[in-house]
Amino acid sequence: MRTLHVGLLGFGTVGAGVARLLVESADRIRARLGMDLNLKYVADIDLASDRGVRLPEGVLINDAERVVTDPAVDIVVEMIGGEGIAKTLILKAIENGKPVVTANKALLAKHGAEIFKAADSKGVDLAYEASVGGCMPVIKTLRESLVGNRIIGMGGILNGTCNYILSRITEEGIGFREALAKATEAGYAEADPTLDVEGFDTAHKLAILTTLAYGTEVDFDDIYIEGITRITPLDIDFARQFGYRIKLLAISKNHGDRLEARVHPTMIPENNLLSTITGSLNALKISGDAVEDVMLYGHGAGRMPTASAVIGDVVDIARNLAHNAAGRVPLRSFQPEGIGRIPILPIDDLVTHYYFRFAAKDQPGVLSTIAGILGEYGISIQSVQQKGRKSGGVVPVVMLTHQAREADVQKAFRRIDALDVVDEEPMLIRLEDANDLD
Amino acid sequence: MRTLHVGLLGFGTVGAGVARLLVESADRIRARLGMDLNLKYVADIDLASDRGVRLPEGVLINDAERVVTDPAVDIVVEMIGGEGIAKTLILKAIENGKPVVTANKALLAKHGAEIFKAADSKGVDLAYEASVGGCMPVIKTLRESLVGNRIIGMGGILNGTCNYILSRITEEGIGFREALAKATEAGYAEADPTLDVEGFDTAHKLAILTTLAYGTEVDFDDIYIEGITRITPLDIDFARQFGYRIKLLAISKNHGDRLEARVHPTMIPENNLLSTITGSLNALKISGDAVEDVMLYGHGAGRMPTASAVIGDVVDIARNLAHNAAGRVPLRSFQPEGIGRIPILPIDDLVTHYYFRFAAKDQPGVLSTIAGILGEYGISIQSVQQKGRKSGGVVPVVMLTHQAREADVQKAFRRIDALDVVDEEPMLIRLEDANDLD
Repeated sequence: MRTLHVGLLGFGTVGAGVARLLVESADRIRARLGMDLNLKYVADIDLASDRGVRLPEGVLINDAERVVTDPAVDIVVEMIGGEGIAKTLILKAIENGKPVVTANKALLAKHGAEIFKAADSKGVDLAYEASVGGCMPVIKTLRESLVGNRIIGMGGILNGTCNYILSRITEEGIGFREALAKATEAGYAEADPTLDVEGFDTAHKLAILTTLAYGTEVDFDDIYIEGITRITPLDIDFARQFGYRIKLLAISKNHGDRLEARVHPTMIPENNLLSTITGSLNALKISGDAVEDVMLYGHGAGRMPTASAVIGDVVDIARNLAHNAAGRVPLRSFQPEGIGRIPILPIDDLVTHYYFRFAAKDQPGVLSTIAGILGEYGISIQSVQQKGRKSGGVVPVVMLTHQAREADVQKAFRRIDALDVVDEEPMLIRLEDANDLD
Repeated sequence: MRTLHVGLLGFGTVGAGVARLLVESADRIRARLGMDLNLKYVADIDLASDRGVRLPEGVLINDAERVVTDPAVDIVVEMIGGEGIAKTLILKAIENGKPVVTANKALLAKHGAEIFKAADSKGVDLAYEASVGGCMPVIKTLRESLVGNRIIGMGGILNGTCNYILSRITEEGIGFREALAKATEAGYAEADPTLDVEGFDTAHKLAILTTLAYGTEVDFDDIYIEGITRITPLDIDFARQFGYRIKLLAISKNHGDRLEARVHPTMIPENNLLSTITGSLNALKISGDAVEDVMLYGHGAGRMPTASAVIGDVVDIARNLAHNAAGRVPLRSFQPEGIGRIPILPIDDLVTHYYFRFAAKDQPGVLSTIAGILGEYGISIQSVQQKGRKSGGVVPVVMLTHQAREADVQKAFRRIDALDVVDEEPMLIRLEDANDLD
């Protein structure tokens, strides 16, 4: 029986999970693959810490270079992360004709064009299922299962940390800071949670999916990104009263000559399946002209769920090596020469529904002043709530709008914010899936 | 650019959808596949009816034989259905070295062993994603994405007709017959709905999934099958009061040396994601030791969603043909020699929770008589409800049990049924995911 040798870069959380599956689940992988996968090297700078995985003698080394250069290594698995050494090592592996498996979403979102070009010109596979949605097979579904579809759009919860925090705020009525502290305590948030809570991690994933879905190069800076740090229990409560939930969504839509690609807190109807995804779970809904909607759901992070996706990729590549079929599926779903550049709609041109919350002085005429300004910009109000009258105090005024253009909304917002009768920074949340509102 | 020729058997609902995608979406398939797929033949006995698809001259023929014998046909797509001519044609296509795509769940569930053996010995691919769950990529997920997992179990809503009927009963409080009539009217039920409502269609799909998940031959007759015809609005209402929904589930569980494989109406907690799947939609939750839970959701039937899955398979096979990589993924997930025969637990040996409903005469001592009989068989009651006291009349007595053995439950049931104080046939519904009840 043929044996293929795997070289693993990085022995951190997910790396250790991958090593564990390769070592402890060798039998079951062989039963399906019909070959042996041998974990030849695990390279890490830390040779001392115990990761709970027993590696055979001589496997753990501190020489990453050897993993990407040793001719005995058939497949390189990069689990280091980040855009520095990981990029150098991946490019070197490709240069040496070695297929690569990675979960490095930041790297692919920002330097994907360069890396995929290198892999295409060398004719080696680059697999990255674990970069988006952990164990959910979103990339395989887009690249293979939905190949007969024109993808119409996608909407997803792709960051478990944010979903966990929003679920805590929703269920416990606590503020963002407190919910973040709980996420950190539960092990869902990193020491520096910026990448997660500011929406960048979600946007990295959206960039990757957008290329796969529509066959376009994505300039990461074209994606509109807004995080969840300003979401309050008050907004979540108002959303609920209107029949909505607030989720950090990655949204993309295909308008043919232009695409939407945006990440922001979004109000969605409570009966939307994405509303029911709570805690650290992820979900992605993909709409195609033939399938209508298909949704995937699962753990978007965590050692073993992510390692499961990595092993799926390693086995896929091993099958290609066995049949001399590298490049069997184009790395980015479309043939390289077919990947164009479809412009992404600037956020100013977005047309959608909005939720507004203003802290208004409780005086006669405030609502009509606000409504008047909105009217000047062609923004029509669908529903208003003014809660908890406190004579002379400040009360939240909350509105849902009909469809409006973002640029107009922002202009009106600045004017309203400057009013004497409006305290605090006003709140704006975009609203999706609201066809039934108009 | 290379062209591969597709021969389609059957120009019915799904067949016409496949033809439409091949003809109308040729550009987008080419952009991904890098080859042309040409629809060479569509064979059907009915050459006259309009299916809303414009086929080029000479494509529509009434000679199925030619499709499976013409050396120019590279890939055969069988969309006839049933276990008769479809089987003959598939075997003949394989005999002639042609890979086959099919959605024929009944055929694969009952004659899979013979057909897969033929394909394996000829070294041709046989793809059947559309046979289970329509557009949801359940087979690709099991065969490829989850290859590093020991599959622990599965639970799924795999028949849209039944789910539609149960949703109607739940939402409108109507009876089974009336709900079935609505399903027929809405085009969700066949003229003869037996295959659907008696659970056979779901069981066909479960048989296929069980082989893929655990690497075992499945004797279709070993699957316990119970349909939804006896479900009443009363039961659904009681279920709701206990915090449950009733769904027709396909359930399989891996106990290592034995498997569970059963289809029956099942009470599941209302906060289980499967409870939120309503209407004609399908969903499958797969549990693995690494992924934990992953769920897929989408249209389990319908012309274009099913055709989308078929095209995914056709493209997969085309990629294998282009790289001479037939058999790249073993047809049934495991290498043929690794597929054993793990016994399926007889339903009598099932241990689970139960819901009982008895129509009891409203007399003193009835409940203690029933409870006494249950106690004799070691069945302990977790919760009882006795509703709507009508002096001297008949009232429903409803119970949830702790874990009990099916054989004991059936014995106790027969004794209770024979009591003078119990009218009508009693109702029994199995209950899942109830770890929190004990």
